[in-house]
Amino acid sequence: MANVAKKVSWSGREQLEEDGESTPLLNGTSSAGAQPLRQQYSSPKLYRIGQLSTVDLTDENQELEETELSTTFTKEIPHNENLLSLKYESLDYDNSENQLFMEEERRINHAAFRTVEVTRWVICGMIGIFTGLIACFIDIMVEKLAGVKYQVIKDNIDKFTEKGGLSFSLLLWAALNCAFVMVGSLIVAFIEPVAAGSGIPQIKCFLNGVKIPHVVRLKTLMVKVVGVILSVSGGLAVGKEGPMIHSGAVVAAGISQGRSTSLKKDFKIFEYFRRDTEKRDFVSAGAAAGVSAAFGAPVGGVLFSLEEGASFWNQLLTWRIFFASMISTFTLNFFLSIYNQKPGDLSNPGLINFGRFDTDENSYQYFELPIFMFMGAVGGMLGALFNALNHCLTTFRIRYIHRRFLQVIEAMLVAAVTATVAFVTIYYSTDCQPLRQDDTDYPLQLFCADGEYNAMASAFFTTPEKSVRRLFHDPPGSFNPQTLGVFTILYFFLACWTYGLTVSAGVFIPSLLLGAAWGRLFGILLTIVPNGVSWADPGKYALMGAAAQLGGIVRMTLSLTVIMVEATGNVTYGFPIMLVLITAKLVGDYFVEGLYDLHIKLQSVPFLHWEAPVTSHSLTAREVMSTPVVWLRRREKVGVIVDILSDTSSNHNGFPVVENTVDSSRPSRLCGMILRSQLIVLLKHKVFVERENLSLVQRRLKLKDFRDAYPRFPPIQSIHVSQDERECQMDLTEFMNPTPYTVPQDASLPRVFKLFRALGLRHLVVVDNHNRVVGLVTRKDLARYRIGKNGLEELDLAQT
Amino acid sequence: MANVAKKVSWSGREQLEEDGESTPLLNGTSSAGAQPLRQQYSSPKLYRIGQLSTVDLTDENQELEETELSTTFTKEIPHNENLLSLKYESLDYDNSENQLFMEEERRINHAAFRTVEVTRWVICGMIGIFTGLIACFIDIMVEKLAGVKYQVIKDNIDKFTEKGGLSFSLLLWAALNCAFVMVGSLIVAFIEPVAAGSGIPQIKCFLNGVKIPHVVRLKTLMVKVVGVILSVSGGLAVGKEGPMIHSGAVVAAGISQGRSTSLKKDFKIFEYFRRDTEKRDFVSAGAAAGVSAAFGAPVGGVLFSLEEGASFWNQLLTWRIFFASMISTFTLNFFLSIYNQKPGDLSNPGLINFGRFDTDENSYQYFELPIFMFMGAVGGMLGALFNALNHCLTTFRIRYIHRRFLQVIEAMLVAAVTATVAFVTIYYSTDCQPLRQDDTDYPLQLFCADGEYNAMASAFFTTPEKSVRRLFHDPPGSFNPQTLGVFTILYFFLACWTYGLTVSAGVFIPSLLLGAAWGRLFGILLTIVPNGVSWADPGKYALMGAAAQLGGIVRMTLSLTVIMVEATGNVTYGFPIMLVLITAKLVGDYFVEGLYDLHIKLQSVPFLHWEAPVTSHSLTAREVMSTPVVWLRRREKVGVIVDILSDTSSNHNGFPVVENTVDSSRPSRLCGMILRSQLIVLLKHKVFVERENLSLVQRRLKLKDFRDAYPRFPPIQSIHVSQDERECQMDLTEFMNPTPYTVPQDASLPRVFKLFRALGLRHLVVVDNHNRVVGLVTRKDLARYRIGKNGLEELDLAQT
Repeated sequence: MANVAKKVSWSGREQLEEDGESTPLLNGTSSAGAQPLRQQYSSPKLYRIGQLSTVDLTDENQELEETELSTTFTKEIPHNENLLSLKYESLDYDNSENQLFMEEERRINHAAFRTVEVTRWVICGMIGIFTGLIACFIDIMVEKLAGVKYQVIKDNIDKFTEKGGLSFSLLLWAALNCAFVMVGSLIVAFIEPVAAGSGIPQIKCFLNGVKIPHVVRLKTLMVKVVGVILSVSGGLAVGKEGPMIHSGAVVAAGISQGRSTSLKKDFKIFEYFRRDTEKRDFVSAGAAAGVSAAFGAPVGGVLFSLEEGASFWNQLLTWRIFFASMISTFTLNFFLSIYNQKPGDLSNPGLINFGRFDTDENSYQYFELPIFMFMGAVGGMLGALFNALNHCLTTFRIRYIHRRFLQVIEAMLVAAVTATVAFVTIYYSTDCQPLRQDDTDYPLQLFCADGEYNAMASAFFTTPEKSVRRLFHDPPGSFNPQTLGVFTILYFFLACWTYGLTVSAGVFIPSLLLGAAWGRLFGILLTIVPNGVSWADPGKYALMGAAAQLGGIVRMTLSLTVIMVEATGNVTYGFPIMLVLITAKLVGDYFVEGLYDLHIKLQSVPFLHWEAPVTSHSLTAREVMSTPVVWLRRREKVGVIVDILSDTSSNHNGFPVVENTVDSSRPSRLCGMILRSQLIVLLKHKVFVERENLSLVQRRLKLKDFRDAYPRFPPIQSIHVSQDERECQMDLTEFMNPTPYTVPQDASLPRVFKLFRALGLRHLVVVDNHNRVVGLVTRKDLARYRIGKNGLEELDLAQT
Repeated sequence: MANVAKKVSWSGREQLEEDGESTPLLNGTSSAGAQPLRQQYSSPKLYRIGQLSTVDLTDENQELEETELSTTFTKEIPHNENLLSLKYESLDYDNSENQLFMEEERRINHAAFRTVEVTRWVICGMIGIFTGLIACFIDIMVEKLAGVKYQVIKDNIDKFTEKGGLSFSLLLWAALNCAFVMVGSLIVAFIEPVAAGSGIPQIKCFLNGVKIPHVVRLKTLMVKVVGVILSVSGGLAVGKEGPMIHSGAVVAAGISQGRSTSLKKDFKIFEYFRRDTEKRDFVSAGAAAGVSAAFGAPVGGVLFSLEEGASFWNQLLTWRIFFASMISTFTLNFFLSIYNQKPGDLSNPGLINFGRFDTDENSYQYFELPIFMFMGAVGGMLGALFNALNHCLTTFRIRYIHRRFLQVIEAMLVAAVTATVAFVTIYYSTDCQPLRQDDTDYPLQLFCADGEYNAMASAFFTTPEKSVRRLFHDPPGSFNPQTLGVFTILYFFLACWTYGLTVSAGVFIPSLLLGAAWGRLFGILLTIVPNGVSWADPGKYALMGAAAQLGGIVRMTLSLTVIMVEATGNVTYGFPIMLVLITAKLVGDYFVEGLYDLHIKLQSVPFLHWEAPVTSHSLTAREVMSTPVVWLRRREKVGVIVDILSDTSSNHNGFPVVENTVDSSRPSRLCGMILRSQLIVLLKHKVFVERENLSLVQRRLKLKDFRDAYPRFPPIQSIHVSQDERECQMDLTEFMNPTPYTVPQDASLPRVFKLFRALGLRHLVVVDNHNRVVGLVTRKDLARYRIGKNGLEELDLAQT
């Protein structure tokens, strides 16, 4: 059972070594293994005011273990979202302003800061260019591969339509799909599991301040790009847009560091940016550039980054993000126009192209607004159904399909089923439409008369992007209502089954396609039922349906409105699209959360929302904080430090530093804060002071030593400390952050939350009114409170 | 001279009573009057580390007065931007989480919070509706009034063109303009001076967290609306768009409070929102709704609010702002379409309508991008020139035109000169164009042949909005290059002279018009010089010129890009517009700041930028904080409190509360923070405890008592405290904020700044490592540091 529990991670397997940070997994996460864990994350509810004024940590600790143990950890760890994983750490968004840092900052004069600022802009430009190039590469490869595939199948079908024996065509189609998807799934499952899916939940978490293992590695990018090409070419109900956001983020993280740890290549540039603060800023630019390249929506990209990630809005940062977005869409457009041999053509700003909605002035009537809102409600309900089904499916997958080869087989199964469903539907479809001079790339004639094509095939037998475009723009009458109805139902289940497979692919395009299909159907019905209304253009209703369905599934509003507006190239529909999206969100939220949030919850990520739960004013810092705190003295014995760092049962990452004190059992006044990673570097460089106060230090440590070790600090086990050295002391004064943020122990949870969230903190020290350390608030202590059905709920913590 | 110094305020006169907060002005702000002031805002540079560990406030205070007095305040207060005014207070964006507040929050359950949230949405909807209605009203009134005016003048000119005696027409024109402007200027100067100008700098300050006296009052709104109608109708080179932002903000502040203090009308609704935190959030929605109504740009409105005001990005708040924006533009559109007798017409989303830029796919070529960037640079330089000239002019006005009647006379003078310049230019213009069937409302034939009209008149002889539209959309050849050149030069100086007059008017439209004129000229020259290039459409270049000029003057980028894109209704030009705006900003910033920032500086507002100056890491909290601090004990004598509040020389607004201590000369441990406004309410309700510990309290104070007094708390002078009562004590425990944010005294300025800015604080207590109060950081302490020519500069503080 412990094995199953361990599998609840994005990668589908254990990740033991990430940046020297992740907790080595305990072999049994059952009651016995969890016992030492309790010392760190004991339920704070037990502390009462009287008790704390004289903190005697040892006693309380003892008491806790006895009382709490049986209630929480004796039962098996449940596989649901009522857990927070201890595996995920926060990013260090707050600079550790220690003496080294301050010395560097003071040395840099105004001109040098200008250089730094210019460098930031240059990096953002490069992020835009590379993201655009990757999008370009994906687009061309998909077009080539899918083109070859569909051409082969079409020729085959055309041949066998006359002769009979179409079952061979079906086999060919299914086999081709399976082949593509198998390769795509294999690389994801065996090389880099975190590359599965769209990557948007992972990037949301990263921007929220959670360090997801491997998420911005070069290897992930490679697997992602190849994986998405194969899964889209493999005919799955997926899009290539979502993964662009992840790709942009990886590009940003890579370029801004000026080196690749995987390739062991250091370009010795951009060293100033080697810390979490800067990296996260660049990653938000990269995510925006990804959205921008995916949808040709630079402003939408900026808003996406801000809506999903920003906590502290900074004007200059926003402009840089905007710049990266603009460059990204421009690069994509530029190279695609050259590839299409129409240089200077501006019609390819994004991977998905909704086509031009050239509307006359009165493109919609006021009385249509309630109809649009109704569509939004339908989209919200369908989206909620989609999410609920996918949630069950994902839980099932977590429980039973955690072996890699099973994952690959499932992906291949879905590919085969998709091909079969499509083939059978096309086969039995009688919707023949006259062939026109337009962008139908692979018109399947099948059993239609000469000069006609099968309309069902124009929805199923092409990439989803092209289907969306056809549904938006084909003239009225291009699809029969039956065709659209059947397609909607089948595609709904296919898309729902597909999301969460171990392939690299997005859910944006399938959602749009689904919505466009039922939206167009709705539009057609409007024209039919009340004896022909003139204003119900099917294309317009397809657009609204697409917005409703996408909004119902992902629940974004502002950024999605702008993305849709930019992708249609027309602001006229801005207002109705907003109405539709808000309705879809409200209706959908009534039933179940958004798809990304569901998946984030299933991974037990300690995700911080925008505000503390509204009814949480009754909780104070004293009740939410982790305690007892492991603290260090300003001048501490090396042996003590090594022991604390080596203690696998309490894998702390930040340690309050207190003034040297006589009574070692209780903490004294807070004087600083030091991170595990900093201590590791200090130990590695043996910055010790001998007992006789003679310095053993070979050379003075510089900020560069910390930056060189970033982000993959070695684990404590790799550092050898001799018995003599254990007796030495370490003076932390120079390396600790002397001015950590603190809160008094009576501060309310919303107040603590606001401070923590606004400043992107990782550790927040709780002090009493003598400035003595009484507790530590970390991300998990705040993320575990949420509004449930019965008011405020508290989540459990698990080592998974 | 003291008199002159006093006039440095937006209203042009003293405002003695604002919300019981503003400092009563000292009669002489020269050296003698400023002496007591030094006690509060002494230059912190004098403190050195050794001194502070044992803070003896009395002594230091003494020392300070002696050493510092002669250096700073013996000379006359300079009238420039090297000052920070003490008149402006911060908003209380941080909730005072005292016991009353916490009790209320704990009483409210989840369902009640949902009601509060729904109420917020309802209020935002109402803000949108009312802002849209106001915009509608302004638009219709301007059209009516200007229509009558221009028709009268046109008939007159037509009559006298044949007869001769056109000088009478000139007189008529000038007289009509003067009459309109006189009324508009009179109401501004004598009723509500803060309604002058566009109001955008004031709203920027408000969103930044500065309380500008009178800025969100109902009276201001009335004056603003009537004033802008009159000044636009009066033919000044102004627009009606900027004031919409201010109007929206006032609407928001009014509606969200559910009462009008001016009208003494309390609707007993929305009482929960009667505090600065909520008010500021609603005002940002109102400002966005204003932008949205002005330009038909809902997304641009949201971005404007965020770019100018946000410090802490909150997703839910952003959605509400977006909602208000959408409703606002929808309301405007709806009612204007009914007014224009085309119900259902969607072509009026904003006050300014750029007209539809219906472009084919290749609306611009890649090689045009450098040309656009060149135009951006030109716009940046012209904008810098504009700002520099206006800066000199404003300084001149502050010094010499501070009497109200002089201000009215200047406005009338500008109106007359504008009319004269326009008339003379039209008179001597020989640019005759054939009359077409389009929107030329008042075609002046003058000396042109029959069936022709004077092209110069189509730029000068109409409202600026219509001129902009003509420059964008009239077919090539509608304007001679000479006409445009002359118009550009004249209008540049007229617009520059006009901005800053004591009338209610905006600078957006004049800037756009100016840019459109030279942009179109540039486009025409491109077609002429290299023997006809086909791609240089004058309308396109007019648009780029408009963007460049506006960007060069106001220096917005992201929000302005979106506003321009939304106003043109076409996303095709998004990328070139962004390039133009960024170029204009970079070039302009090289010379001089943006127009709004210049005006904010001239008002000595303590405006907080996004980040602390880059080189300010060398400063610590100890060096920037105000000290000595006036603190109160948890249980304090009423007499002491009254004396402290009555002390006009140290007009503090927040007081740290410390534990009761034996030694009264030095502060003890911090235990809370209380505001002047709270103390005033306590004194008013006589919440005293007698010496014998018998309570005198009539009834228990509720949060409602504080809300009822908000925002115009009575001054201390209005509260009578008898000699007996002075001997009583007050227990502050229940009313103080028990968990104020603190920083250690060694924290660097950027760190303090980040905390202060991100959380929107008003007072930040600096404590030593025993949690004893050593200083207080307020907005002015942070705002006074900036990057100057010689590195970090420190501004002076003045009571003006």
